[in-house]
Amino acid sequence: MNRQELAEQILRKKTFLCVGLDTDVRKLPGCLQGQPDAVFTFNKSIIDATAPYCVAYKPNLAFYESRGLEGWRDLEQTVRYLKEEYPSHFIIADAKRGDIGNTSAMYARTFFEWLDVDSLTVSPYMGEDSVTPFLGYKGKWIILLALTSNKGSADFQFTSDKQDELLFEKVLRVSQNWADEEQMMYVVGATQGKAFQQVRKVAPRHFLLVPGVGAQGGSLEDVCEYGILPDCGLLVNSSRGIIYADNTEKYAEAALEKAHDMQQSMAEILAQL
Amino acid sequence: MNRQELAEQILRKKTFLCVGLDTDVRKLPGCLQGQPDAVFTFNKSIIDATAPYCVAYKPNLAFYESRGLEGWRDLEQTVRYLKEEYPSHFIIADAKRGDIGNTSAMYARTFFEWLDVDSLTVSPYMGEDSVTPFLGYKGKWIILLALTSNKGSADFQFTSDKQDELLFEKVLRVSQNWADEEQMMYVVGATQGKAFQQVRKVAPRHFLLVPGVGAQGGSLEDVCEYGILPDCGLLVNSSRGIIYADNTEKYAEAALEKAHDMQQSMAEILAQL
Repeated sequence: MNRQELAEQILRKKTFLCVGLDTDVRKLPGCLQGQPDAVFTFNKSIIDATAPYCVAYKPNLAFYESRGLEGWRDLEQTVRYLKEEYPSHFIIADAKRGDIGNTSAMYARTFFEWLDVDSLTVSPYMGEDSVTPFLGYKGKWIILLALTSNKGSADFQFTSDKQDELLFEKVLRVSQNWADEEQMMYVVGATQGKAFQQVRKVAPRHFLLVPGVGAQGGSLEDVCEYGILPDCGLLVNSSRGIIYADNTEKYAEAALEKAHDMQQSMAEILAQL
Repeated sequence: MNRQELAEQILRKKTFLCVGLDTDVRKLPGCLQGQPDAVFTFNKSIIDATAPYCVAYKPNLAFYESRGLEGWRDLEQTVRYLKEEYPSHFIIADAKRGDIGNTSAMYARTFFEWLDVDSLTVSPYMGEDSVTPFLGYKGKWIILLALTSNKGSADFQFTSDKQDELLFEKVLRVSQNWADEEQMMYVVGATQGKAFQQVRKVAPRHFLLVPGVGAQGGSLEDVCEYGILPDCGLLVNSSRGIIYADNTEKYAEAALEKAHDMQQSMAEILAQL
């Protein structure tokens, strides 16, 4: 999916919500516990309930990997379902990969050939040649970590160099030499508030994937005040706040309501563009 | 495996070699191409041939993941074989994971419960709370990226802050508040030469996992001149130089010879301690 197609989906559906599929087998509603294919059944219901209100889904690899082969099977099944039933939704594999060139090339095969998702989150620590192997796939995106939503983002990402450039700003600036805004997005945590101003100074045109609204405490309004672009330029993710909104057999309806609420807030913001 | 046990293995076997199992299905010897279980058969032969000359194995996750479920099955089978047949070898999952706390906790389950290896490589970019969830497992290690072996290491890892501290030095210094040298090692690329002096100033006692000898051009002598400690404190990895030493049916013997050569060089270095 290219940028224009993504932006069209956003403006047509009046939402820039991404639903995070951080499906923890221990947190499934009681009615699914112990059922065969419980994780896929859960994901399928969540997807069917929320699809009208979002433009993207973001399975978090750790939650699948942690259950070994069975988890990878659930992931594969979920992605296949999305691609068949909801081909206009953008799929993000949240895997935060990145390694030396020949190894990143292998990760690219995992996500852009075997799983065949639209995009992958990548860690910038190892620099250009850890990122470029992902860029040889037409229509596929990488989403580079810039400023993350967690407390530990303060440990290194705000380190200031001699020219007063912070590490996350350097990541944003330098990585723009590797790929343009048709193939690269950045992760910027919703919890970072005003830092969105700094981000937009360095990366005025890139789409941002914004986690941290909801369970982590970030505010949609703050994010949009500084981060939004004429074609939106934002994908705001919510995981736990939507998928675990209720743990009874009404979990899908509860997820629908939460996603619908967010879509309504987003529609108001988009109307002001 | 604790540090003392690892050091004992090194001094007893006179080697600090780690064999990297970067098994690429397209590079298998002709005699294995198209065979069922070719990757596991290859790994098993390489392990049986090299086990006397090394103390550690490092499967590189990307090479398994890239083949989806089949690859994960090969990885699981390889790790199980190592644990059953060679329980005194240290196993490193080279996966370079790291995410917000609840997600890193899931990755910890993948590698320290499901796969049950001794250690995992972790990326430092997201800071403390992305690393600490891995530390709750007694006897398990994390190996944090500090200064990597690739060209892209120059993009961010050498960024100097206002106190003249380079980013990799800051990672080494700050992360020592998270775990001690009984549970944390660092990745430092063999290609970094004299930077080992700087690394040892900041991390004088930690074990280092050193990739980049062989195919990537690093020198064992340089690494040891600045990096070695009284209990060795080094695991030097070679992947392609050993496992692809020959692509005929004699691949295992060729791997044995290469590993034996490295062990001989290492024995000479250890004799001077």
